[in-house]
Amino acid sequence: MTTTTTTADRPIRVTVWGEDRHEKVNPRVREIYPEGMHTAIADGVRALLGDAVTVTTRVLDDHEHGMTEETLAATDVLLWWGHTAHDEVADEVVDRIQRHVLEGMGILVLHSGHHSKIFRRLMGTTCSLRWRNDGSDRELVWTVSPRHPIAEGVPQPLVIPGQEMYGEFFDVPDPDELVFISSFTGGEVFRSGITYRRGYGRVFYFSPGDEVYPVYHHPGVQRVLANGVRWAAPTRERESYLVTPMYLPGEFDRPYLTDDEGRLIDYRTRELVERGDGA
Amino acid sequence: MTTTTTTADRPIRVTVWGEDRHEKVNPRVREIYPEGMHTAIADGVRALLGDAVTVTTRVLDDHEHGMTEETLAATDVLLWWGHTAHDEVADEVVDRIQRHVLEGMGILVLHSGHHSKIFRRLMGTTCSLRWRNDGSDRELVWTVSPRHPIAEGVPQPLVIPGQEMYGEFFDVPDPDELVFISSFTGGEVFRSGITYRRGYGRVFYFSPGDEVYPVYHHPGVQRVLANGVRWAAPTRERESYLVTPMYLPGEFDRPYLTDDEGRLIDYRTRELVERGDGA
Amino acid sequence: MTTTTTTADRPIRVTVWGEDRHEKVNPRVREIYPEGMHTAIADGVRALLGDAVTVTTRVLDDHEHGMTEETLAATDVLLWWGHTAHDEVADEVVDRIQRHVLEGMGILVLHSGHHSKIFRRLMGTTCSLRWRNDGSDRELVWTVSPRHPIAEGVPQPLVIPGQEMYGEFFDVPDPDELVFISSFTGGEVFRSGITYRRGYGRVFYFSPGDEVYPVYHHPGVQRVLANGVRWAAPTRERESYLVTPMYLPGEFDRPYLTDDEGRLIDYRTRELVERGDGA
Amino acid sequence: MTTTTTTADRPIRVTVWGEDRHEKVNPRVREIYPEGMHTAIADGVRALLGDAVTVTTRVLDDHEHGMTEETLAATDVLLWWGHTAHDEVADEVVDRIQRHVLEGMGILVLHSGHHSKIFRRLMGTTCSLRWRNDGSDRELVWTVSPRHPIAEGVPQPLVIPGQEMYGEFFDVPDPDELVFISSFTGGEVFRSGITYRRGYGRVFYFSPGDEVYPVYHHPGVQRVLANGVRWAAPTRERESYLVTPMYLPGEFDRPYLTDDEGRLIDYRTRELVERGDGA
Repeated sequence: MTTTTTTADRPIRVTVWGEDRHEKVNPRVREIYPEGMHTAIADGVRALLGDAVTVTTRVLDDHEHGMTEETLAATDVLLWWGHTAHDEVADEVVDRIQRHVLEGMGILVLHSGHHSKIFRRLMGTTCSLRWRNDGSDRELVWTVSPRHPIAEGVPQPLVIPGQEMYGEFFDVPDPDELVFISSFTGGEVFRSGITYRRGYGRVFYFSPGDEVYPVYHHPGVQRVLANGVRWAAPTRERESYLVTPMYLPGEFDRPYLTDDEGRLIDYRTRELVERGDGA
Repeated sequence: MTTTTTTADRPIRVTVWGEDRHEKVNPRVREIYPEGMHTAIADGVRALLGDAVTVTTRVLDDHEHGMTEETLAATDVLLWWGHTAHDEVADEVVDRIQRHVLEGMGILVLHSGHHSKIFRRLMGTTCSLRWRNDGSDRELVWTVSPRHPIAEGVPQPLVIPGQEMYGEFFDVPDPDELVFISSFTGGEVFRSGITYRRGYGRVFYFSPGDEVYPVYHHPGVQRVLANGVRWAAPTRERESYLVTPMYLPGEFDRPYLTDDEGRLIDYRTRELVERGDGA
Repeated sequence: MTTTTTTADRPIRVTVWGEDRHEKVNPRVREIYPEGMHTAIADGVRALLGDAVTVTTRVLDDHEHGMTEETLAATDVLLWWGHTAHDEVADEVVDRIQRHVLEGMGILVLHSGHHSKIFRRLMGTTCSLRWRNDGSDRELVWTVSPRHPIAEGVPQPLVIPGQEMYGEFFDVPDPDELVFISSFTGGEVFRSGITYRRGYGRVFYFSPGDEVYPVYHHPGVQRVLANGVRWAAPTRERESYLVTPMYLPGEFDRPYLTDDEGRLIDYRTRELVERGDGA
Repeated sequence: MTTTTTTADRPIRVTVWGEDRHEKVNPRVREIYPEGMHTAIADGVRALLGDAVTVTTRVLDDHEHGMTEETLAATDVLLWWGHTAHDEVADEVVDRIQRHVLEGMGILVLHSGHHSKIFRRLMGTTCSLRWRNDGSDRELVWTVSPRHPIAEGVPQPLVIPGQEMYGEFFDVPDPDELVFISSFTGGEVFRSGITYRRGYGRVFYFSPGDEVYPVYHHPGVQRVLANGVRWAAPTRERESYLVTPMYLPGEFDRPYLTDDEGRLIDYRTRELVERGDGA
């Protein structure tokens, strides 16, 4: 089974998911990312974390978008970049990814992924924002939680010479931790690095990363992503909490289910339980 | 249009939604709630808030579960009690309720509503918990945020003589505010009163309320729900943020959309914008 | 006694505290605020809240800095502006103000008050930040919590043509609520509107307000302060929690103290309690 | 200098501070903790973390309570147990400990340390609570943040057969993270494991640990403290932020101070800066 070890014993298994569409139709994007944005993102993580990770990539056009049960079960941290084809991601794949996050898989959602189905599913909100992409904006990423592991080694501020503007109001739930706030040349601000816990999984959203700028070649951005991978990696095996367990008084360690007649079923074996006390 | 006034000018419009199924098949529930749980909940809100509210009820078996666009547009705060028939609630109705919450409608989710589609949609998690309902538990509801408006006038602790046990781990996102923590005779604890903001709407989950105990006749529980209604009522009109607006540099007040050729469309009128500067 | 009524029954009693030193030595400040900054702040609150408030002012050079027990007991919300003379505020006065906040008084700390003794006392941190005041900065105050009562009626963004720059890292505890984030012409960002609960009292820090700019004459800034006053006003009487009460099993409503021999003392009357059961 | 390496390179340097007074006058405490509570706490940390830590102890009656500048500079994580003699801790020592926390030292505050000067200093509140110690209470410590590093390997629930009752309302700021909630036989609940960030330092408060029960010999409690030590250990060197630095436009990396005439002083060297541009 793929999940019987934890990241304490072995490298963190990272899967970078890329939509891989802009690269095929936009020469500017292809010039910046000749092997696809997902490849550049994966290379950056590998370069900084070395033997501490194994990194693979998947794209939208792969079978089941590359997000099979097998791949997800063997993924500790998933990075997600999508933009123009969010609607093409099948709902059952979104269900599956969500389940893996809730059971412990880490996820880093990047840039335009704010409007992806999986991020909106995890947030429960529209995840809308204000934007501009006319080439006029420099982004400054300021750390507001200096000792957060994701901010380690990140310059204050991180300067990204050219970037799309993302501005407030950003319609997400109040984050568990606010790590970065960005400003743009036009004066807008954005909560650009935010974390959430969802179930047993950790979620990090990081907004820099538009396809028409070489953002994922930027050493500071690569540092953030590498830190994010380490932060989001689970320290324990996947665990399911889909079904609500019943407990008898004082039996704190023994979960049951009940059938329609109220009879007790062992939570783990799913077998009917005979109890001498008639309970 | 139904939303051109705000709750500062008129009574808060409350809709209590009840599943209304246990009442029909379980004599014990019918004895406690002869006119349905939703009616008892509505009566409690009316009794405490009087002229400050207008309260109506809807049930699962109503057309579109009673959750039509018209009803939701005329609802400031929705109370939701469901249990045995969560799956019967149509997905498009859940979409609609979520949209209204994100646009500003308040929602109070009650007891077994933790597993309702709308609550799981707003939370992004399983919302699972541990439980027991063998008649052995008294619930004590302790206030941990004494000056929160929802805790006003609530005894410390609020004693509920008989209640189903709901225990941790409760798989929800970390709440924005933790108002109540409950303990049970068996020693379990539960975050029983928690708040969230989702979009422009306020969400309050309150766990006491199993159908086989007269919980909604309890004055302390009625006080919590009345406080919750006041807290969740919007102070401004509904507002949509479904589409992400674009802004030009320095034009902070003028949102645009863009068409496939990148031409500017006025966000409010949805008409093409002619700009003398060629932008 | 001054606190037997609550703000539901009567106007909110607001006290604006000003250091009133720059005004005396700096002609530019005196020109902008001929009757002192505290007077301008008070006028703004009065203008917007009218009969809903009674507003008085106090200054550093008043007896006990104007912060007598009597004044504080008759204050629902205190506004605090200080800068150059933080060290002149006596520690016993800081103790007293802190006690009143913990017992329920609201407090708005303004601009350079970030380094005041009372703010650092309530925060537990240095409250340091980065700054610049060379006349080159415009401040844009962006709302990131659109339905927060303090943001009601505040433009998005609030534009302050000239302001001192305050930038991150701002060494405060993570706020309970982040209402505003500012950007400056130089590209810095700042969490400019943040709330905390301390004991039974509410705390709001708002950073715009340097003495050499007419910030407190700005209608948008006045709106924020008026909203802040309403938000911070207590809805219940002052209440003390300085001493830790003891409770016997099941006696949830009856607090005791104990003397050195472990004998029970009634928490409210402070008299020795005779118990027939020998407890 | 003692702080030029970080805990990535060497063992975590732990200092356990004990008041060491009950042990001297109460035979029951001496029987449970013959070498003092601080020694038992230290032994537990050593037993679980082994070579990953070096652990020393200090007590109230040591010179400067053992909390000299030298000791604190060589401490990564401080554990603090006090109860009957909080007032004997000198204010200048409290100042010093607070400064070290703000500069990056981790601190674990234990049980009755809730009323210590250092904890109240870091919290800004009374830190009062309700209590009972008549031998009638079992404490159940429930994890509500299952993947938090401090909860790793801790049973659900952690059962402490005999413990003093600590109950809500606990007058602390809303915690950054709520890890544990306890219930007691009498039905009270308590936020028993809470974390805060203060400056660059991490704070963990854990409430089990009364002197008349063998709580610090309990393997589950030892596990929590060992996890807490690892969680609170700084990953970077101490850093001071006591003085607010000034920055010129665009010079994000160059902090200045100013003298009374507004002349620039280099932040690091504290020397006057000559600028050719006359700024």
